Amino acid sequence: VSVDVPPLSTRPKAATVGVGRQVILRPAIQKRYVELAEPTLSDQRPDLDRVLDALDDLELRADLHVLRRLPSVLRAADFKVTAVVVDDVLIDVEAGDTTGRRFGLAYDLGTTTVVATLLDTSTGTPAAVASMLNKQQPFGADVITRISATMLDPATLPRLQAAAQDTLATLAAEVCAEAGVDPRKVYEVALAGNATMTALVLGIEPEPLGVAPFVQSTASWPRSLRASDLGVQVHPAAPAMVFPALGAYVGGDIVAGMLASGMDRDKRIRLFIDVGTNCELVLSDGDRIVATAAPAGPAFEGGAIRCGMRAADGAIEVVTLTDDDVKLQVIGDVAPVGLCGSGLVDAVSELIRVGLLDGSGRLVTAEDAKEIAPGLAERFHTVQGERVFVLAWNGVEAAESVYLSQRDVRELQFAKAAIATGWSLLLVELGVEPSDVQQVLLAGSFGSYLSPASAVRIGLVPKLPVLRIVSAGNVAGEGAKMALLSMQERAGAATLLREVRYVELSDRPEFNDRFVDQLAFPV
Amino acid sequence: VSVDVPPLSTRPKAATVGVGRQVILRPAIQKRYVELAEPTLSDQRPDLDRVLDALDDLELRADLHVLRRLPSVLRAADFKVTAVVVDDVLIDVEAGDTTGRRFGLAYDLGTTTVVATLLDTSTGTPAAVASMLNKQQPFGADVITRISATMLDPATLPRLQAAAQDTLATLAAEVCAEAGVDPRKVYEVALAGNATMTALVLGIEPEPLGVAPFVQSTASWPRSLRASDLGVQVHPAAPAMVFPALGAYVGGDIVAGMLASGMDRDKRIRLFIDVGTNCELVLSDGDRIVATAAPAGPAFEGGAIRCGMRAADGAIEVVTLTDDDVKLQVIGDVAPVGLCGSGLVDAVSELIRVGLLDGSGRLVTAEDAKEIAPGLAERFHTVQGERVFVLAWNGVEAAESVYLSQRDVRELQFAKAAIATGWSLLLVELGVEPSDVQQVLLAGSFGSYLSPASAVRIGLVPKLPVLRIVSAGNVAGEGAKMALLSMQERAGAATLLREVRYVELSDRPEFNDRFVDQLAFPV
Repeated sequence: VSVDVPPLSTRPKAATVGVGRQVILRPAIQKRYVELAEPTLSDQRPDLDRVLDALDDLELRADLHVLRRLPSVLRAADFKVTAVVVDDVLIDVEAGDTTGRRFGLAYDLGTTTVVATLLDTSTGTPAAVASMLNKQQPFGADVITRISATMLDPATLPRLQAAAQDTLATLAAEVCAEAGVDPRKVYEVALAGNATMTALVLGIEPEPLGVAPFVQSTASWPRSLRASDLGVQVHPAAPAMVFPALGAYVGGDIVAGMLASGMDRDKRIRLFIDVGTNCELVLSDGDRIVATAAPAGPAFEGGAIRCGMRAADGAIEVVTLTDDDVKLQVIGDVAPVGLCGSGLVDAVSELIRVGLLDGSGRLVTAEDAKEIAPGLAERFHTVQGERVFVLAWNGVEAAESVYLSQRDVRELQFAKAAIATGWSLLLVELGVEPSDVQQVLLAGSFGSYLSPASAVRIGLVPKLPVLRIVSAGNVAGEGAKMALLSMQERAGAATLLREVRYVELSDRPEFNDRFVDQLAFPV
Repeated sequence: VSVDVPPLSTRPKAATVGVGRQVILRPAIQKRYVELAEPTLSDQRPDLDRVLDALDDLELRADLHVLRRLPSVLRAADFKVTAVVVDDVLIDVEAGDTTGRRFGLAYDLGTTTVVATLLDTSTGTPAAVASMLNKQQPFGADVITRISATMLDPATLPRLQAAAQDTLATLAAEVCAEAGVDPRKVYEVALAGNATMTALVLGIEPEPLGVAPFVQSTASWPRSLRASDLGVQVHPAAPAMVFPALGAYVGGDIVAGMLASGMDRDKRIRLFIDVGTNCELVLSDGDRIVATAAPAGPAFEGGAIRCGMRAADGAIEVVTLTDDDVKLQVIGDVAPVGLCGSGLVDAVSELIRVGLLDGSGRLVTAEDAKEIAPGLAERFHTVQGERVFVLAWNGVEAAESVYLSQRDVRELQFAKAAIATGWSLLLVELGVEPSDVQQVLLAGSFGSYLSPASAVRIGLVPKLPVLRIVSAGNVAGEGAKMALLSMQERAGAATLLREVRYVELSDRPEFNDRFVDQLAFPV
C-alpha cells in the first residue's frame, strides 16, 4: 500500500512572460511527495518499481543515475521521498518532502551576449538573471568568422565548444549564487540560440551552416540531451530542452522569439524582425507563417562604420536634430566616443527628416546645407577625402570627433535594403500589402533600442504608424523561459517548426532587382 | 531523391547457440548502405533528416554523438554512407559501405570468472573468446563479502565498480586484439550477471540485495544504458543490454541461462540448477515456471573444505574408487594438491557407492572399513582428531596428503540439502513428482564439470536416470550471445521476467523440516 500525496496546489497558476503573454504554469519539472510501504519478504518489489507504482498516473522512464543512490535514499528517509520528474523522466528521488524547491534555467545563447535566467518553476518568477559576453568572442565577432575558424583548424571546434560551455557554466554558477539556490535543485535547462551557436555549444561541426546550400545537422534535437551536454553543472540528470531551428539562418533563438511573441496563435498580420548582422524575418497573416533570413552585415552592431562601436558606455544611442543643434543621448551618460546601431539609424533618419540627406543616400552639398539648415551646415566636413557630418565635437578637428560619413550611410543603406528586400518578398509570398501589416515586432537586443520612428523613416520597416512598431525585447530568452514554464508552450515550438515555411531568398532571381529598389530612403 | 540499397542477404541465417538452440539471426545491430542526394538550395533538408528519410521503414532516434561529425562524414563520403542502427537508435553514420563489419560483445560477469565473447553478428560466429578472474576478487570471494565491504566503507563501492569495469575493459581489448577487430566496430554489448555483480558494475548501492527482505533496485534496466556505463570502450554510442534479474538471488545470469536453455519454450518438465555458493533453481512444467534461490555455501567452490581448492591446476576433479585403489583425474595433469567441487561430490558419491560412507553421512569405522573394502581401509586416518579418507598420498603422513574429512562430508551435506530443499519445494509448488522431471540442466561453470551419476547419488538432483541429467555449460554467456543475435530471443528475456514466479523460501515454515529430511544421502 502506498500513499500518494497530491501537490498542495491544484489551481492553475499563471505567469506573465514573453510579449505580454499569460502562461499557465505547467512546467515539465514536477515533484511528488510519496510515502511508500517498506519492503517485506512478501513484498519484494524492487526499489524503483515501488516508487513508480506510487506515480502510476505517469508513464515514466528512469535513468541509471536515479538507481545508483536510490537504495540508501529510500531507507534513510524511511521510504518518505519526493520524486523529481521532468517530462516523462524520473530524474531523482529526494529524501523527505522537497516539493517546494524546483528551479529551471533559461538561456539566450547569443553570438555576442549570453543571458541566463534562473526561474522558480513553481511560481514562474525569475530568482536571478545574469548576462555576460559569449566567451567565444576572441574567435570572431560573428557566426561566419567562427565557422571559418573551425574550417581552418580542426582543433578550434572543441575550443569554441569549451568557450561556450564555460560561458553557460559561469552564468549558472552566478545566478545560483545570487539566488542562494543549490545548483542540484535546478532540474531542467532550456536554451535558445541561433543555429551556429547551438551547433558549437554541442560540439557539432558547423561548416555546412556557413556555406551554400546552408544545411543544418538536424531539425530537432535529441530528447536525451542533458544540461551536462551543454557543460552546465546543475542536477546531474537535468534534461536540456534546446530550441530547434527552422533553417541555418533562422535559428532556435527565432523559434523561441516567435513563441514568446505568440506568432503561433495571434490572428493579426504581424511582421517579426530580429535586427542584427544576420537579420531574421517572420511574417504571419494569422493563418500561414513564412520566415527568411537577410544578411544585413555588421552595420547595426557598429561594424564597418567609421565611428561605429557596440552599444557600450560612450556610444551615442539616440540622435535628435534641431535647427541649429544636435541633441545626443549617450550610454552611461559620459562623453560620446562613438556611434552604436540605434544611434546610426537615428542620425541617418534625422538627416533625412531635416533634408540634409537625400533619398538616394547622398549628403547634400555645403551650399545646399547652408540653405536648408544654416545652424547645422558647419558640421559638414571632409575627412580623408570623404564627406562627413560631425555629431559630437572632440576638439576642433572633425577627424577626431564622432561623425557620420558618407560611406557609413551607404553601409546602412545596404543593411536596411537587405532587410527590406526580405520582408517585401515575404509580403509578396503571402499576398499582403505593406500597409496591411498590423504589428511589427522589433526583436533582439538591438531591436529593443531602435527608435520606431527612425526605423520607419529609413525604410527598415514598412511605412506604418509608429504605434504599430513595437519593441519586443529579448524574445529568445523569454521563449526559453516559456518552454520551462509550460509543456503546452513548448509543444508550440514544435508546431511552429512544422507550420512555418522557410523561404530561401538567396537563389531568387527577383532578389537583386528588389534589393536595388530598396536601397533608396523613402522620402 | 535518395537511393536505399537493401542489405545484400535477405535469406534468414541461423546460428547454433545456447543449449543446442538454433537462433535465426535478427540482431539489434543493423547496417544499411545508402546513397543520398546532395543538398541544394531547393533541398535544404538537415543532414540527419536526409539520412533518416532513406531509412523510413525504421522509426529511429539519433543521439548527439551521431550529429557531431555527421556534416563532415556525409560530405567527405559524397553522401554515400552506412547507417549503423542498434534496435531503434541510429548510433553512427560511417563513410562508404561498411555493412560487412558489425560486431557485438557478450559478457558473462561472474562473481569469480568473467567471460567475454566477441561475436560477428552477421554470421553468429564468435570471433574471439577470453576469460579472466573478476578483478573484484581481492574484495571478497562471494557476493555477500563484497556487499559487506560497501557497507563498511562508502569508498568501496566506486572501487568495486572500477574493478569490475576494468575487468570488462581488459577483456574487450583482449578479444578485439585477438580477432583484429577495431573496437569502434563493436556496436552493442550484452551482459549477464547476478544481481549483485550487475549492481556493482553499474555503481548501484548493493546493500538491500544482501539483507532481508532482499530487494533489488530495479526489475529492468534503462534502455538508455551504454557500453560506456559498463566501462567498456567500444563504439562510443554502443548501447548495453543488461539482463534483468528475477530477484536479488535469481539474477540476470539465470534469466540469460533460462533463455539459452529454452526454458521459455520447451514443453517438457525441466529443472534448471545453477550450482554455486548461491544456487539458483528454476522449474518449468512446460506451462508455468517457478524459480528460487538456495544458499548452498562455499563447499562447491572448495571453500570450508579442508583440502578444498578452486578448479585450477592440481585440483582433483574426478574420483573413482575400485576395490583397492583410488583413481583420480587432476586438472592440468599434475600432482594433486587439493579437491575442487566436482572432486568433492565424486569422492562422497564413490564412498557411498562402495559403502564406506553411510546414509547419515558418517564415515564407517576402521573395523567396518576393513570388512567392506580391505584395499581401501588403510586410507582411513585421523587428522587433528577428525576422521579422514586419504585420496592422494603426499609422503606418509595423512595430514600432508589430500584427503576428505568427516566435516567436509557434513559441509557437502548442508550444501546439497539446501539445494534439494529448494527443488523439492518447487516441485510441490507445481504439483510435480521428482520422477516426472524429464530433464535436469546443470548450469554454471561448476555444473558443467559435475558428474551426473554422482549428483544423483548424493541427492543433489532428483533420483533420475543419468541420461536425463545434462550439463548445460556456461548458459549465462550463451544467453548474452543470443540477446546479441536475435531481438526475438531478447524479447524472450522480458517475457521470462513476467512469467516466471519467484518463490521466496527463507520465510517458509516447512523449509527447516524439509531441510533436515534432505540432509541424508539417498542410499
